[in-house]
Amino acid sequence: MAAIITIGREFGSGGREFARLLSERLGIPAHDRSVIAEIAQRTSFAEEYVRGIVERTPQRPVLPFLPGGQGVFFDGHAEMPAESVYRAQREAVLFLADHAPCIIVGRCADYILRDRATLRVFLYADLESRVRRCLERQPEGENHSEREMRQLVQRMDRERARYYDFFTGATWGDRANYDLCLNTSSLSLASAVDIVEAALKGRG
Amino acid sequence: MAAIITIGREFGSGGREFARLLSERLGIPAHDRSVIAEIAQRTSFAEEYVRGIVERTPQRPVLPFLPGGQGVFFDGHAEMPAESVYRAQREAVLFLADHAPCIIVGRCADYILRDRATLRVFLYADLESRVRRCLERQPEGENHSEREMRQLVQRMDRERARYYDFFTGATWGDRANYDLCLNTSSLSLASAVDIVEAALKGRG
Repeated sequence: MAAIITIGREFGSGGREFARLLSERLGIPAHDRSVIAEIAQRTSFAEEYVRGIVERTPQRPVLPFLPGGQGVFFDGHAEMPAESVYRAQREAVLFLADHAPCIIVGRCADYILRDRATLRVFLYADLESRVRRCLERQPEGENHSEREMRQLVQRMDRERARYYDFFTGATWGDRANYDLCLNTSSLSLASAVDIVEAALKGRG
Repeated sequence: MAAIITIGREFGSGGREFARLLSERLGIPAHDRSVIAEIAQRTSFAEEYVRGIVERTPQRPVLPFLPGGQGVFFDGHAEMPAESVYRAQREAVLFLADHAPCIIVGRCADYILRDRATLRVFLYADLESRVRRCLERQPEGENHSEREMRQLVQRMDRERARYYDFFTGATWGDRANYDLCLNTSSLSLASAVDIVEAALKGRG
């Protein structure tokens, strides 16, 4: 049942926690933020900068950590930082998938690995339950109101969609890109893990 | 694990066969065409006529089997046949769901039963695999070309969407209406049955 599992997810639908639970159940690593570290290493950008590009984390300024603030050079052509990052992201995802069975959260991994035998999962949930989940899990020190959190959730999804659509030419969240789509408003994350395990067993 | 399971499906994604396999696995009845009989009884329309309305089966003429070809009367108001049929469909679905755990294919059942504890499944697949499935399963005597079948599959989905959207005010196939969406291009129907069983276990 060794497998590569990619997880796309709406912001606040429980993707990170789901990946952790699935990792424990299957005994394979889950790559979530660790992909960022892998990309940073490949681009020599700082992790924080890479995260700013791939997630467009809205609260933090996005400043390059290279001399002069320019993009890296590749094949003699100047690339925009976002393109360098996407190229490194692609390499990082392929590297992780080649290395060993694992779970990869986000990072257009479903698209990057489209020619491999992966299981492509998409998690979604209604807006209210996503806002509630995010409010309950606010890190120490953050104190968003419900209204702010609703705006943040919607903005993060817009950014994810924009990033995915730009680099893949496909539509983020389109069911055609996934093998199964699970609604975490109504299914518990534990149940979602059972479901993915059942799907993997069916593939032998 | 007694439950009501509703199955929405793209035409050719294997909904009927899936319902039969799931019915065998869970030991509960699957209502597919039998809902039509239930509706026919409630409207006094002929089954064939009801099917023509709810599926807009394109090859057959849609003629009412009531005297004068008029719609039935309800509460003193004349209703269009499609509205009478939808009303009877709603009653039939509620009756079946009240009666015993079961599987209901199509018929806007996910919407009609939206306030009940159901498991709402949607099956989909890429166009090519749906066309292939339909060609392989053509009834004796039918002999559609691949091109004709592609057009038929697309037309059936348009009709399903139109019917669903008109009566529910929601969008047919929108993942928000379902608990899980399964891609039968990549998942076998047997695997889809395992997945639904896992989802039901998670609900206790």
